[in-house]
Amino acid sequence: MEKYDVVIIGAGPVGLTLSTCLARWGYSIKHIDNRAEPTHTGRADGIQPRSLDLLRNMGLKRKIMAHEPAKVYEVAFWDPSAKGIHRTGTWASCPNFIDARYPFTTLLHQGLIERVFIEDIEKHGVKLQRPWTITGFQNDGKDPNYPVEVSLAHVDGTHAETVRAKYLFSGEGARSFVRDQLGVKIHHKDPIAHVWGVMDGVVRTDFPDIKMKCTIHSDAGSIMVIPRENNMVRLYIQIASSTDPDWNPRRTATAEEVQKHAQDILKSYTISWDRVEWFSVYPIGQGIAERYTLDERVFMGGDVCHTHSPKAGQGMNTAFLDAVNLAWKIHHVESGFAPRTLLSTYESERKLIAENLLDFDARYAKLFSARIPSAGEVAGAASNEPEESDFVKTFKASCEFTSGYGVAYNSNTINWGPEHPAQHPLMLSLDQGTTKLRSGRILTPATVTRVVDANVVHLEQEIPLNGSYRLYVFGGEPGVTQTALRDLALHMGSPKSFYSVFAHRDQSRDRYHVRDNPATDFLSVCTVLNAKRAQIAIAEMLPEVFARYRDHVYADDVWDQRVPEAKAAAHAKMGLDERTGGVVVVRPDGYVGCVVKLVDGRGTCEALDKYFGVVTGRKLGDERASL
Amino acid sequence: MEKYDVVIIGAGPVGLTLSTCLARWGYSIKHIDNRAEPTHTGRADGIQPRSLDLLRNMGLKRKIMAHEPAKVYEVAFWDPSAKGIHRTGTWASCPNFIDARYPFTTLLHQGLIERVFIEDIEKHGVKLQRPWTITGFQNDGKDPNYPVEVSLAHVDGTHAETVRAKYLFSGEGARSFVRDQLGVKIHHKDPIAHVWGVMDGVVRTDFPDIKMKCTIHSDAGSIMVIPRENNMVRLYIQIASSTDPDWNPRRTATAEEVQKHAQDILKSYTISWDRVEWFSVYPIGQGIAERYTLDERVFMGGDVCHTHSPKAGQGMNTAFLDAVNLAWKIHHVESGFAPRTLLSTYESERKLIAENLLDFDARYAKLFSARIPSAGEVAGAASNEPEESDFVKTFKASCEFTSGYGVAYNSNTINWGPEHPAQHPLMLSLDQGTTKLRSGRILTPATVTRVVDANVVHLEQEIPLNGSYRLYVFGGEPGVTQTALRDLALHMGSPKSFYSVFAHRDQSRDRYHVRDNPATDFLSVCTVLNAKRAQIAIAEMLPEVFARYRDHVYADDVWDQRVPEAKAAAHAKMGLDERTGGVVVVRPDGYVGCVVKLVDGRGTCEALDKYFGVVTGRKLGDERASL
Repeated sequence: MEKYDVVIIGAGPVGLTLSTCLARWGYSIKHIDNRAEPTHTGRADGIQPRSLDLLRNMGLKRKIMAHEPAKVYEVAFWDPSAKGIHRTGTWASCPNFIDARYPFTTLLHQGLIERVFIEDIEKHGVKLQRPWTITGFQNDGKDPNYPVEVSLAHVDGTHAETVRAKYLFSGEGARSFVRDQLGVKIHHKDPIAHVWGVMDGVVRTDFPDIKMKCTIHSDAGSIMVIPRENNMVRLYIQIASSTDPDWNPRRTATAEEVQKHAQDILKSYTISWDRVEWFSVYPIGQGIAERYTLDERVFMGGDVCHTHSPKAGQGMNTAFLDAVNLAWKIHHVESGFAPRTLLSTYESERKLIAENLLDFDARYAKLFSARIPSAGEVAGAASNEPEESDFVKTFKASCEFTSGYGVAYNSNTINWGPEHPAQHPLMLSLDQGTTKLRSGRILTPATVTRVVDANVVHLEQEIPLNGSYRLYVFGGEPGVTQTALRDLALHMGSPKSFYSVFAHRDQSRDRYHVRDNPATDFLSVCTVLNAKRAQIAIAEMLPEVFARYRDHVYADDVWDQRVPEAKAAAHAKMGLDERTGGVVVVRPDGYVGCVVKLVDGRGTCEALDKYFGVVTGRKLGDERASL
Repeated sequence: MEKYDVVIIGAGPVGLTLSTCLARWGYSIKHIDNRAEPTHTGRADGIQPRSLDLLRNMGLKRKIMAHEPAKVYEVAFWDPSAKGIHRTGTWASCPNFIDARYPFTTLLHQGLIERVFIEDIEKHGVKLQRPWTITGFQNDGKDPNYPVEVSLAHVDGTHAETVRAKYLFSGEGARSFVRDQLGVKIHHKDPIAHVWGVMDGVVRTDFPDIKMKCTIHSDAGSIMVIPRENNMVRLYIQIASSTDPDWNPRRTATAEEVQKHAQDILKSYTISWDRVEWFSVYPIGQGIAERYTLDERVFMGGDVCHTHSPKAGQGMNTAFLDAVNLAWKIHHVESGFAPRTLLSTYESERKLIAENLLDFDARYAKLFSARIPSAGEVAGAASNEPEESDFVKTFKASCEFTSGYGVAYNSNTINWGPEHPAQHPLMLSLDQGTTKLRSGRILTPATVTRVVDANVVHLEQEIPLNGSYRLYVFGGEPGVTQTALRDLALHMGSPKSFYSVFAHRDQSRDRYHVRDNPATDFLSVCTVLNAKRAQIAIAEMLPEVFARYRDHVYADDVWDQRVPEAKAAAHAKMGLDERTGGVVVVRPDGYVGCVVKLVDGRGTCEALDKYFGVVTGRKLGDERASL
């Protein structure tokens, strides 16, 4: 019987992202999908700013941008007026108070996005098997190394096979065989269900905001306009709601009816269609799976676990992040970097986000159905005024959430907090104001100069999505921190440190050209110094532990508009002292794990050993350090 | 006999760029190359900042960047020291005083660049015919429409064909059959010839600047280091010079000899090669063709016309710009937009640049051979201090030149100047301080917000390389310029204006979705207003002439670090009044043609009619305007 590390069901965004990560990290994968081909038209299309960071970190952003997607920078709101409709205001979809590299939503047909992933997994030796479906599975433990048996069949029933796997993942979409078999219930947070009509096409119109994302309320109904690639426009129109007196979830509409409806809403502007690319009517309820896994062997993610209205464009983005969250945890468990219990954080972290998403979805629906924002409130959101209405506050919080930067995982074993078992006086925290970073949140972006080649780079992107923790050593002023850096390196070099315990065993292999993981696959190290690039001599100024990551030494010498007074902008943005620095641990998926003060002596390494001791489930650090 | 608009000999950078432009603009092309395949390894590899602008304008930049080229931001200088060599300083390869979008040199193997072009021309129906060569040609005028007869043959002599063409272009490289047949002499500005060795490979070394561009002088000789894609390094080493007492242009060296030489120069650092990708030794003289064309039917460009040392990385960049300069001029003559005399400006403009290049090449050689810069001078170049040594001045001028932004075409029919036949009191000029733009120089980059979709965009890239003039109407404050804009539109609408005279004749064709050329292929129009994006209502605020370019209306509302006090940064960067604006004419290749004041009444259109009257060789403007 064939054995695989992971069997993945479904080649939508969540399955493909998981497959891409694990294939790159060397896992054997069986990946099936019950469709004969990738998505042709329609479906999800919004990539949020945070997802763009992720795609870039995976090296896939450029291929997605090559399709010339539409970009949404602002959202326009239209309301009824005496003569038809009028614009009440616009606001940024990712306002300036969010520190985003790509402050826009990218709109591109899901099929094109899927193809980018498929090309990548094929490069890493995984061939999608389609159209195949799952017919059964059980975690029978008959083979302790490959405890899950999975039965698969061609959709036409002509072929079938049974394989064993370490893990089974369902990314099947809202209708999931795996979820049904597990008996996992869908919990409906908001009982209101809707029928939506969605139409992609090329239009001609005198409506001035046709290339903007718009929410339009009129006496004839409401509509959402979203620009697309290739001069297309997507319209979302609500066809029925379970709050209607004559509610029927099977209610439908023809393309012509939806066009007529859109024309009535947009009056006195005119609109007509040169071409309709895709049209669909589908009911959507707001639901969340009660569990994402029962046994930490069979996992689910994406639409299997959470469904909601398409309005906020969150579906695909949540799927990407579900997959990445699970991918690195499987990788760390299978690599011996973490205890099996790490896998429990997949559900606890991602279910919280899905719950937030559903809460947001309900608020968002209410916001646009019930309340018409005034121009004054809109201006308030943009100008960062101290006095804010509840509406503006809600909007701001929503922007952060919809851009993907609102994701904040709670404290747990990997996100340090005051309840974390690894308590140490050198731990820094947002609550105490000793850093601006918060555990469980994405690392703040910062622009720095790479020392070896003087390239101006995005620090947060410098370690690719390689499955490793990222240790950012902000070294402050080299003259000030010389001893601290030397001491940190010294203790990191001790055999039981977090750095040494997972060191490559095969020391005979030539790793001269290995850029990100020369010493260990457990983590990658970046050193950032508050000095001009030309003043930094890596070999002379840095201990060998840091110097061997020679492509990851940076000068914090690029001016930043967000901290105009800072000499070392990256230090300042992290809320670290520009002279004395600090050490930031970032999880493999880009979220901050913990922040530690950089001091002379053993303390800094001790604090890191404590944190990583909890993370890895090992006793780390030397004798005296553990006293 | 087959007829073509253009026959192109040679598929290096110059031939491919010409082919790409003309194929896109609908011309029939016969394109041959005597090599069986594109360049495999080695050859030119440096793309300068200005060339990157051009490639982006052609929509090819992303495909080139997808190959992950090396980027050079700084150049390091090493000199002999007591123990071997030491770094005397570094400086930016495109310093901050140059306003460049991409302030770095991009290093990528020529073959990969060629393939990006080849893919593009194939998409437009041109198939490279190889390995074929040219065997004869004559401008016999037997067919007045296709005056040039060209004989071609397969390199193995088995096949031959003769075709007729409107134009023949030689991009054959330094050894040109066409140039020889025409009897055009190569003029050697600097009699000194050199033999160069060049080696691409993967090295291991403790030399800290191996990923920088370096010029290294040691007691053992000199070397130039250039980083490459795929972790490779290129070394240039001078093997012989015609100033040597035993000068022999056939002198050569083995790879091992060059490696040994490099090791001696780099002492006490060590270097060894894991892999050599390419190694070549070749003699180079500094030469310039006395003519680029004799009859304005048979043209030459690229290395056919100018050869020089590889050190400054200018070869491919000059080739790109030769080709684009010629492409749009052929297009305008063949479209009836310009008189045949326009073609004479190809030689006059591009030969001047080649002469500047050769002057620079000679200065550059002297600079690095004879004079060792001190750290103090280097610092001076970076800090923009008022007191500058000759050396720093020379360096600055060189940076501008090597980045591609130093290109300044002299006044002629298309570059307005005080001697231009189109004199008008509303013409603005750098000399008089009424604009910061200079005719014959590239348009200053500026970031603005596109009104229809709120996208933050690079204004100078908004019109693709479509062969059209670009009319940038800087509208100042809409309240102030309302009448001026209305009057300009009114006069542009008159049948004999520069705008109307080349209007699309086939008015029945549906051009609703035509973005850049809805009214005419002669020019594209951008309107830039000093207002917040949300305050701009295109249909209400702009005359129909400007409003129909609805995707090309911009809000000048993005703050710019270079003009921090300006409210309308794009206006300010062009040196135009932020309230009253101005009109900038940019040539199809991105160089400023003329700048005109925007005023109420007929004056602005009158000045533009005068300028375009000279450009097009027509009497433009209405009766009264020409009085």
